[in-house]
This record gives sequence, C-alpha cells and structure tokens, in this order.
Amino acid sequence: MSGSVLGNNFTVTTWGESHGRGIGAVVDGCPAGLVMNEEIIQQFLDRRKPGQSKYSTPRKEGDKVTVFSGIFEGRTTGTPISLAVLNENQRSGDYSEIASMYRPGHADYTFDSKYGFRDYRGGGRSSGRETIGRVAAGAIAISILKELGITVAAYTRSIGNISIDYSKFDESLIKQGPLYMPDAQASQKAEDFLVNTMKNQDSAGGVIECVVTGMPAGVGEPVFDKLDACLAKAVMSIGAVKGVEIGDGFDVATALGSTNNDAFAIDDSGRISKKTNHSGGILGGMSDSDKIILRAAIKPTPSISKTQETVNKSGENITVNIKGRHDPIIVPRAVVVVESMVAITLVDLLFSNMHSNMDNIKKIYPVS
Amino acid sequence: MSGSVLGNNFTVTTWGESHGRGIGAVVDGCPAGLVMNEEIIQQFLDRRKPGQSKYSTPRKEGDKVTVFSGIFEGRTTGTPISLAVLNENQRSGDYSEIASMYRPGHADYTFDSKYGFRDYRGGGRSSGRETIGRVAAGAIAISILKELGITVAAYTRSIGNISIDYSKFDESLIKQGPLYMPDAQASQKAEDFLVNTMKNQDSAGGVIECVVTGMPAGVGEPVFDKLDACLAKAVMSIGAVKGVEIGDGFDVATALGSTNNDAFAIDDSGRISKKTNHSGGILGGMSDSDKIILRAAIKPTPSISKTQETVNKSGENITVNIKGRHDPIIVPRAVVVVESMVAITLVDLLFSNMHSNMDNIKKIYPVS
Amino acid sequence: MSGSVLGNNFTVTTWGESHGRGIGAVVDGCPAGLVMNEEIIQQFLDRRKPGQSKYSTPRKEGDKVTVFSGIFEGRTTGTPISLAVLNENQRSGDYSEIASMYRPGHADYTFDSKYGFRDYRGGGRSSGRETIGRVAAGAIAISILKELGITVAAYTRSIGNISIDYSKFDESLIKQGPLYMPDAQASQKAEDFLVNTMKNQDSAGGVIECVVTGMPAGVGEPVFDKLDACLAKAVMSIGAVKGVEIGDGFDVATALGSTNNDAFAIDDSGRISKKTNHSGGILGGMSDSDKIILRAAIKPTPSISKTQETVNKSGENITVNIKGRHDPIIVPRAVVVVESMVAITLVDLLFSNMHSNMDNIKKIYPVS
Amino acid sequence: MSGSVLGNNFTVTTWGESHGRGIGAVVDGCPAGLVMNEEIIQQFLDRRKPGQSKYSTPRKEGDKVTVFSGIFEGRTTGTPISLAVLNENQRSGDYSEIASMYRPGHADYTFDSKYGFRDYRGGGRSSGRETIGRVAAGAIAISILKELGITVAAYTRSIGNISIDYSKFDESLIKQGPLYMPDAQASQKAEDFLVNTMKNQDSAGGVIECVVTGMPAGVGEPVFDKLDACLAKAVMSIGAVKGVEIGDGFDVATALGSTNNDAFAIDDSGRISKKTNHSGGILGGMSDSDKIILRAAIKPTPSISKTQETVNKSGENITVNIKGRHDPIIVPRAVVVVESMVAITLVDLLFSNMHSNMDNIKKIYPVS
Repeated sequence: MSGSVLGNNFTVTTWGESHGRGIGAVVDGCPAGLVMNEEIIQQFLDRRKPGQSKYSTPRKEGDKVTVFSGIFEGRTTGTPISLAVLNENQRSGDYSEIASMYRPGHADYTFDSKYGFRDYRGGGRSSGRETIGRVAAGAIAISILKELGITVAAYTRSIGNISIDYSKFDESLIKQGPLYMPDAQASQKAEDFLVNTMKNQDSAGGVIECVVTGMPAGVGEPVFDKLDACLAKAVMSIGAVKGVEIGDGFDVATALGSTNNDAFAIDDSGRISKKTNHSGGILGGMSDSDKIILRAAIKPTPSISKTQETVNKSGENITVNIKGRHDPIIVPRAVVVVESMVAITLVDLLFSNMHSNMDNIKKIYPVS
Repeated sequence: MSGSVLGNNFTVTTWGESHGRGIGAVVDGCPAGLVMNEEIIQQFLDRRKPGQSKYSTPRKEGDKVTVFSGIFEGRTTGTPISLAVLNENQRSGDYSEIASMYRPGHADYTFDSKYGFRDYRGGGRSSGRETIGRVAAGAIAISILKELGITVAAYTRSIGNISIDYSKFDESLIKQGPLYMPDAQASQKAEDFLVNTMKNQDSAGGVIECVVTGMPAGVGEPVFDKLDACLAKAVMSIGAVKGVEIGDGFDVATALGSTNNDAFAIDDSGRISKKTNHSGGILGGMSDSDKIILRAAIKPTPSISKTQETVNKSGENITVNIKGRHDPIIVPRAVVVVESMVAITLVDLLFSNMHSNMDNIKKIYPVS
Repeated sequence: MSGSVLGNNFTVTTWGESHGRGIGAVVDGCPAGLVMNEEIIQQFLDRRKPGQSKYSTPRKEGDKVTVFSGIFEGRTTGTPISLAVLNENQRSGDYSEIASMYRPGHADYTFDSKYGFRDYRGGGRSSGRETIGRVAAGAIAISILKELGITVAAYTRSIGNISIDYSKFDESLIKQGPLYMPDAQASQKAEDFLVNTMKNQDSAGGVIECVVTGMPAGVGEPVFDKLDACLAKAVMSIGAVKGVEIGDGFDVATALGSTNNDAFAIDDSGRISKKTNHSGGILGGMSDSDKIILRAAIKPTPSISKTQETVNKSGENITVNIKGRHDPIIVPRAVVVVESMVAITLVDLLFSNMHSNMDNIKKIYPVS
Repeated sequence: MSGSVLGNNFTVTTWGESHGRGIGAVVDGCPAGLVMNEEIIQQFLDRRKPGQSKYSTPRKEGDKVTVFSGIFEGRTTGTPISLAVLNENQRSGDYSEIASMYRPGHADYTFDSKYGFRDYRGGGRSSGRETIGRVAAGAIAISILKELGITVAAYTRSIGNISIDYSKFDESLIKQGPLYMPDAQASQKAEDFLVNTMKNQDSAGGVIECVVTGMPAGVGEPVFDKLDACLAKAVMSIGAVKGVEIGDGFDVATALGSTNNDAFAIDDSGRISKKTNHSGGILGGMSDSDKIILRAAIKPTPSISKTQETVNKSGENITVNIKGRHDPIIVPRAVVVVESMVAITLVDLLFSNMHSNMDNIKKIYPVS
C-alpha cells in the first residue's frame, strides 16, 4: 500500500490537496442497505469546517460534499461510495515564499525529500483539509455502528494545561460549545488562554478523548491487528497527533498490578462485566465489552505569525513569519476527525471478526 | 488480514501458543544477499529469554531458534525465512483452574468471547512467549538496517515512578544491566522498588524508549501509512503496551507552537538539520533525518499472587491467587520486543519508499 | 479488500455505476515526477469510447476525463491521482423492465443475491462503463512503463472463428482499423461476419492478444504473486473474459517437454536469450526478458435483441428481448482495457521487485 | 506483499525449498471450532506424494505433516495453524552441474536474475515440493467448505491429446486410478501414451478440470476481486499452469450471444436456476449458485533426459541431459493442488462476502 488506503474489509482511500480541484474519498466495502445521503455526511463535515468560532480560521469555505456513486434510492448498494468536496474556486494566490522555504513544524522538507518536489499551495496533501475525506468516510462508519447500537463520542479533554473536571462533565457542550469541551468552566478558561495565545502570535495544543459504548466483546484480532494497535495507527495518522493511549494509558507505567487489573464480576443482569475500566475496554487486543477509552495528544498548530528561524531551498538560513490567519488551535476541529478514525477502525474490525468461528459462519451460510 | 501478518513489502507472520509445540515466524520479502544465520537471531532471542535476572521468571527455557528456509550458504535467498523455537517438552501441567475462570488483566475472557473456547495452557496465543516470533523477525530487520547505516536502540526509561536522568545516561548498561536501564543510580533504585513489589505479591510497569539513528529523510507514506502511525500500530500491538508517543508526545498538549516547532538550520556540513527535535524525527508522517524517538507505556504484569476477585465460566464470583512464579515486571524483557517492532516497521516503509519518485525507479531499471 | 482496490504498491481503486453521477478511479502509489495530464489519459479513454464504429453502440458519450488531484505543474506529485468521467446528464430512462427481471448472461441475479438489491440503471456497477476507471489508470501505468523502455500492445486476435494470419500482421491496423485487428483480410471477413450477426439480432465473441516488450528479467514474485498469476487475475477481472493463457497456453497440454521447453542461448550481443518463446516470457512466475504474450477469451455481448427465456423477480418464467442498441461485440473496445490491466500489473510488480536484493536497496539508500 | 502470502481473510503463507530443512505453511484466519488434525491433512498430502504410480518419480518420501499450532483438543482455535513437512535427511547430493547452468523450462535463470543467486538444490523454492504447503492449507479450506455443504473435486480431463468422454465419466476413478482420470478407457490410452513418452526420454502435459458444487449465490467481489479473477490467480500461481478458463472458457470466443447466454428458469423447487451452464457458475464475478467449472492447462514436465541446448553461468552454449528420474507428467499429482487452490480461494471470498449487506451483519451482531 502506498499510504492513502486504510482498512482490509471496510476500505477508505482518500485523495486531494488543499488548493487543488477538490478533496475526496472512496469507501469500498460499505455493506448494502444502509440509509445514506449527502445530508448525513454533511453534518459531520460541518463539525470540522473552519470559521465556526473565533478560534478557527475565518476562511468561509462551503465544504459541500457530493456523493458520486454507491448510493441508490437513499441506501448504499454495496459498491464503492465515491465522494468529494470540490473546490469552487481554486485560489491562485502567491505561494512563492512558501514554495521556496521549509516552514518549521510542517511537512515541506520531508515532502521534498521524498518526492523531489511538492504541491506547495496551502500545504498540499499535508494540509488539514486532507481530513475532509476521513470525516466523510467516518460519517458512513458511524452510521453503520449506530445500526449496531454502538456509539462513538470524542471531545476536548484539555487545552494547554486546562483540563476538564469529570464531575462537571456536560455532554451537551460537546457539539454546542466553541471548543467541544464538556465542562463549561474549563471551556471558559481555555477560551481566555486561547485569546492570550493569539495575542502572542502563538498557538496551543491539547488532548482529545474518545469514548465508545456498546461494543460486543471479542472484536479485534490477536497479535498484530489488535483493536488498540489498529486504533493507535488510525489516530496517530492524523496530522497533528503525537501520542495515543488506551484506558489508563501512560499512567499504567506507575501503577501496580493489583491496582491496574480490573476485577471481573457478574453484574445484576447475570452478565460478566468489569468492576473498573483501567483497560479502557480492551484486553489482549480485543474489546472486553466495556467502554473503549482513547486519548490523543494534539500538537500546537505549526503555522504561527511569530518570527521563526528556518532555511530556504537555496540553503540559506532565514527567518519567517507565517502570513495569513491560521487556527490558533487544531483541537476542536480535530475532535470529529478522531471520532471518524475510531469509527472507521471499529467497522473494519467488526467485519474481520465475523468469521472468527464456525458458528458465526453457519449463521450466514446455513446448510440447507 | 486476520491479524497475524504485518507489513506490506517486508511481511512478518507469527504463529504459536505458549505451551504448544512451538512458536515461530515466517519473514517474507527479506531481500537476497543478507548475511544471516541462527546465531545472529539467537542473540536477539537471548535478550528476551526468561531467567536472566531475579526480576524475570526463573523458568529455564532454552528458546533455541531453528531456521527452516530462506537461507543458503550463509545468506538470505529472497525467499521466505521460516524459523521457530520448538518446545522440547510440551508441559502437560494442571490447567484446570485457569481453564475454568477469567484472570483479571488477561485475555482469557476476550478469547472465549471471540472464538467460543481457547487454548488455556499458559496463556495460549496471548502469552508473552508470542513475542519470540517478533524478536526473531526483528533480528533480521535490524540486520538489514545495519547494512544501511541505521541503528535502533531501546532501553528502560522508567520503572514505576523511577526515571532515568539523561545526564547520567550510560549506554553500556542497556545490554548489561538487569533492567536495561541506562542510569546506574536509577537502575539501583528500581531494583529496590521491584524487590519490595515482589514482597507484596504485586507487579510493576514502566516506560520503554526507543531511539533510531541514521534514517534518511522522506521515509513513511503521507496520510494513513505515516511513519509514526505505523510505528504506533507495531508497538501498541505488543501485549502490555497501553500508550505510544513520538518525540515530545503528550507534552505537546501543553506546549506552544513557538516552543514546539523545531527551527531548521544549515549545519556545518552544509546540510539541512533541525536545531531541536520536539518532532521526534518525524514531520508529516515522514522521517525528517533527525533521531526518531518513541516511547511505550508498559502495564504491570497482570499475573500476581495477591488475591483478586473474578468470575468463573459457570458465572460465579470467585477469588483467585495466580499460582506459579511470574515476572514482577515485563519492561526489561520487552525492550528488545519494542526494538524489533520498530525495526520491522522501518524496513517495511524503507521498501515502500523506494518507488516514490521516477528517479529512484530509474536507478533500479536503467533504460539501456 | 472489498474488490474495488487492486495492487500492493501501485494501487488502483475504481468506483462508479453506469448511469450514476460518474465513473472514476484513484491511483495511489504513482511515483512523483512523471509527466502527466488529462490529454494523455483522454487518448486512452477515446480508444474505449462507444460510437467509434458501426460495431459499437452509437451512444455519443463525451467521456471527458477530469483529474482532481496528484498532478501539479504537469507532473505527478506522488500523491493519489483522483480522476473521473462525470456524467453530464444522468439519464432518467424507464428501467422498470430491467429492474424487475434477471437478464441472461448478466450480473443482475448475482448482484441481487449478494446485496439484496441493485442499482439497475444500465447495468450499474457491472456495466462495461466500469472499465473507464481501469483505462484511465492504465494510461498512467503505460506512461510509467514507457519511461522504462517497456511497451504494451494488445490487439484483436480473432472474432468468432476468424483469426489473424501472423504472416499478414500489420501493426498500423491496431489503432486505425474498426476492429483493432492487425490483418486487413481477416478484419474484412470479421466485419462481414459481424454484419450478419447483427442482422440475426445476435452477438459475437473473440480473443484479444497482448504483447509486452522490454521487460527486464526477474520481475514477478515466486509462489502466489507470480507475474502470470497476477496477470491472470487482472485480465480475468474484466467483465467478459472467460479464459486467460500465457505463451503457448492451452496448447501446452498436447505438447511434449522436448518441444515446449525453450532452449537458452548466448545471443550476438553476448546476452542470454531464448531460442523460442513457448513460455510467453515468463518462467517460474518471473519475466525471462523475452516478450510476454497473453491471450484473453471474450464472451459474446450478453445483451441481444433476440428473444430469450428468463425469470422475473416475482418468480415467473418470462421471455425478454433486450431493448436499445448494444455492441454486437465487445472485443474491439476491450483491447485497450486488456492493455491497461496488463500495464497496471506490470508496474505493481516492477515496484515489488525493487527490493528483492540488498544491492538494489543500497542503490536507493547508499551508506554515506 | 512479497508473493508468499495469499488471501485477505483466510490467509495462507507458504515457505520452504525442495532440499532445505522442510516445507510448510501458516494458515491465518481459520475460524475456531473446526474439527482438524494431522490425519485429515495427511490424506490430502498423500494424494500429491511421489512414488504412487510408475508415472511419478519413485523417490520414497514420507512427507509426514506436523501441526505446530492453532489446534487444541481436536479443534481449530482461531489462531494461526503452522504446519510443515520436515525433511528427515537433507540430501547433500552433487548439485554442481545444476548450479552452474540454466535448465530449459525451469526458473533457474529468472531466480538468478531477480536475487543474484539461488538455492539450486533440487529446484529450491520453485520445486514442485513447494505445493506441499498449498495442499496442506487446502485440506483445511476443504474441511471448512464441507461444513458448509460445498464440495470441490478436480480430476484429469486430458493427457496429451487423450481426453475423457463425459458419457463414460466414472467418479470412482478420480481417487483410485493412477492418473486421476475418470474414464477407464481414456485412462488406459493415456497410460500407453505415457509409457511411450517415457521411452522417448520425453514428458507430457494435460488439462485438469475442477468442479465445485453447493456454492451459495453472490460470492465474489465485483470488479477486481471477482470470483473468477481470484480463481485464475490462485490456479495460475501453480508452477506448471499456463492457462485457466471458466465455464465454456476459450470456446466463448466462437460462440454467439444466443448460444452462450444461460436462460434463467424457476426450477421444480421454486428456486431460480439456469437451464445451461456456459457461465461455469459465475456471472459478473459472483457465484450464480450453479456448478463452478474451471480448467487449467498443465505444461509437460520441463525436466527431461533427452539432450537439450542451453547456457551455463560462464556464458557458454552447452548441451544438457537432466539426470535423475523425474515425473514424465505432472498432471495427476497436480490434481489435488488445483483442488486446494480453488478451495482456499472460495473460503477467502466466502468470508469477504459475509459483510456485503446490513442484514448479514445484524445476524452476527444483533442489537439487544
């Protein structure tokens, strides 16, 4: 694979550069019979759109999705779903400065190293706009999960060093607040912090948390395609993510076996459950039917107007102030991207799991 | 894929259960002409062998590797390398207790959920012995990297809350010390902590760090097969890992753009380099020619003799004390596993990168 | 994989239904630096366009390709190339008849069996229009091969029982004649045969032959990904193909070892070559540096106006006359499709072969 | 992939050289709960063993299979099944002649071209012994199919120009006769022909036919992973196969639409069936619930004692008489190999098909 295709059974291919003719995705392996249309997908794309608050770039992009195939009479047909956000007007701005030098924290240098040259307009393929394809495919994956009683919800857990207080968790803020941060007080503090950061021509990072409910036990493949391993890949493949953890994550390093192990118990309904969830819903690389909990560390936006040192392609040391208005923080807009990548991974592994045992196989192919 | 195959061009398949007839791997896509033999692989396996110190289980397993194919006259032939550690004597111990219940922190419950039943002897496929195949394949990958001037070195960064002090970093301790911890003082403190943990019938976790030098720039595929994404998957697929981070990792969440961005500069040799390495050697999912730095959080060994609550397969709440002597900590023995998984990933992506541009392709297929 | 993605390193994903919003492809893994534009691709698409002769359906479709990504300043960038032929006017014809029954020789019944329902407009995903994506991707593959001195040329070898006479082989007729049949006399006889077939409201089949020159030796992977195995899959995946053979093909069944083996000899330039080419350029699944020769059997167009028996979805036996004007033969338009599938396969295996030995790898990653 | 791994969900990896330490396979993705043991696999291996009749090489190899993992208490566990035929005594014969030259019709030259050198002992990886892994994996696949009411049966259709007469088809001869040829009279004529061929120090080829019954409709993925395309790849990947056809195969080229189309009809049980089976059980790349019929053309054994011209590695033209006793025909021993490759392909596509529609998915994951 050359990097733009993800998944074995639910396969997502994305394409497109920031300032080219469009950005899109092809979803292959979506089962037939799912209710789907452009409106459903658009709702997810709208959550990552710029210009939604003063903490995201004010560019007013329509980002309207078009579905080209795979849906007929309001339902998926089982054939590939091709979709795209076409750029209405390809901006022919002046990119001579960005073309000639390597912006710190960006992929300009590595793209040139790999390919010999690059589409330098607006970051090209490494632009945040690349996530449009992920979110559109994620909308489809989330719709499949919903049919199976599985929910995926991500939110901002922290911005800078301001974290949410779980005792004040307010789910309604996830989709309504400017920062997708489900604690009104923390959200307000984070806003103040961001205003200050912007004033300093700087940018900030944070942590996104994602919670999955309703997963049946046993999903994920032992050894290399563990559920947590596949989630880690999917989430780490989002541009700004520098760390991923499951359940107690890095805190396990300082825990003891006796505190980190989750006791099993028979719950009131007579089913096996866990008394705690340090495992984050995954044991041995398979879902343990508890909530799946994942966190991703998001780096500060690399584009800042503050003066930075770098080099140009002629091999000279220079200084640069990145022009234009950029998001002072990526975290809020990346929430739906994390959600999408988690959902895509879950669907792919739910499908792989279907043929784990002969009993399941005989449910689909009963011997007459 | 069903989870036991990793990689696209350098493909590793592992097989085997703890107490079955053996544990092994098949490495497909190893280039021809590499000097390779059982001794080279054995050296790596010896680093993960139990019974090396008092902090690992005293079972005396030979763990001698046999290579069955793919090597001829001391060199790889380009065909699959099949290798295995065969179990000399399959232990027919009494597994009735472990067979009938779900050990906390283990994969017993999830295996049963997925497959309907499991090979319960010694943890079966989810045993730590499964990593034998990874390490043997890693030995081959590391040998390829060495030929290309690339080194991979992992070590214990912390045990419990005892971390190494980089000012006291002593590389010689990595392969000699009982804990693979390159700071004599921290290592001693960690030993004391472990002695105490064992006394309490408990277990501990820690953090492993891995450093790669000599990587050319541009390796890794943008979007889904980013170098960091593939590393995250490979490392998270190790049984006890609950978190992975690259470069500054979770610390980026509290950094600012101005402090997190690495300035580019022309170094003394006239080459482009970075003044700092917050990125951990990866930008936009591709190597930036700086050191790659990765950390993995390892959970405490789930097998402890302390009394724990759990359930049996008859649906009853019970208590359990895991019998036998188990590693009080997995970290030291997992060091070479992390190293192996990183190396396997690097080789696979180095191969994928070979055809990124027409100039490279023409080097291999010159037009006469 | 769910069937719409082909290749490991040069990856082609196609999408689209006959009468939907368009048909397209995403090519991932195209190396950077290749001269590419819509005109190059259009030339290949024009060779499969309907309405080129009286033996193809007279529908006048523009079939104009648009490239949405992956090309910048006239060259490929190494990122995915997304391209499509958008349908200017989605026909909203009357499909009630085709929707309610299963046409003989078509995929209506199998689509319904698999997915529960289907996009019945014009054959949906199983329409011949699906090959647009293949040909567009093939145009890119052929351009890469050309840079490496490799040519791929397919032509009509036979129509019905009229075959070309190799002593009268006239290459110029391949792209100029109405039937892509490189023997003027045979081509004329085939035209007469087709006129008669059309008069009888019937359709005809034939054989396409494809010849590759300039392949370096050793391309193809032993065992499962043999060059001939991958070619067989790629070509058999074209809708109407029912047989594939390499070199002497089915004639080997009646040959003797002494007549079928090709003697090796040192040729005038001092290089190793073969005195004959019964092998069709492939030995042990790898190219032997001789011409690669492949043939594909194409079935008669299933859509005929002659009365046929079939069933409808209500479970009744009915008769049907397929309305509309359909190609009386698919062969001529499929020539460029065979060529494309062969080229896509060759590029993918040329890339896989780059890391077969350490010497090649060191050419790309020289140790400084 | 590097060529020794086949399948997406039911994944077979083979390894081993003719005269190395053994030949084996790893089957990943075998569902849990299937009754399996070494005896079942051995029965299949015995059908391809040499020395069964005077038309196969008289080497007396035990070819005893050992299963190393994935089976517990007589049933598959869902984890990888590793198995091998270990060579009891690695023959250290004199290979200096074969090492120094390129045998006509063999892969010596292409292996050297690809890898720079080769394991020349007994053909190395390109030996017919490589098929041991395929047949062992095939035994597992056929066992899965049997549980689903699906049978796969291959047999010798022709040897040289002696073909079976279907009116004299005698199924009992498939497993009992020396040539696996289900027509006593044709079989006797073929024996005479082979005796004569051996007298002339020559070898012969033939055609193997494979019939599958009981396939549910809709299996196979439209476009690239069509059932026929995957079968073609799997069968063409067998060393000596030079052609593959489905249903009427190459005869479709001379058929008319009206004769080649299979009429659908409601059968006595009220189900949809086809009146004829020119399609060979596959329409649009999916099973149509009719018998699947496939044929493979097998070339004459390239090893013959008759004098042949070739070159040595020093670049000299030489003549060669291949020493030792070799099979005068591969066809009978390849019958079980074709059967195996067909079965492996069917299982993989049956698994992929399980998530084609939401109804199937909900059967496995019912919403409580």
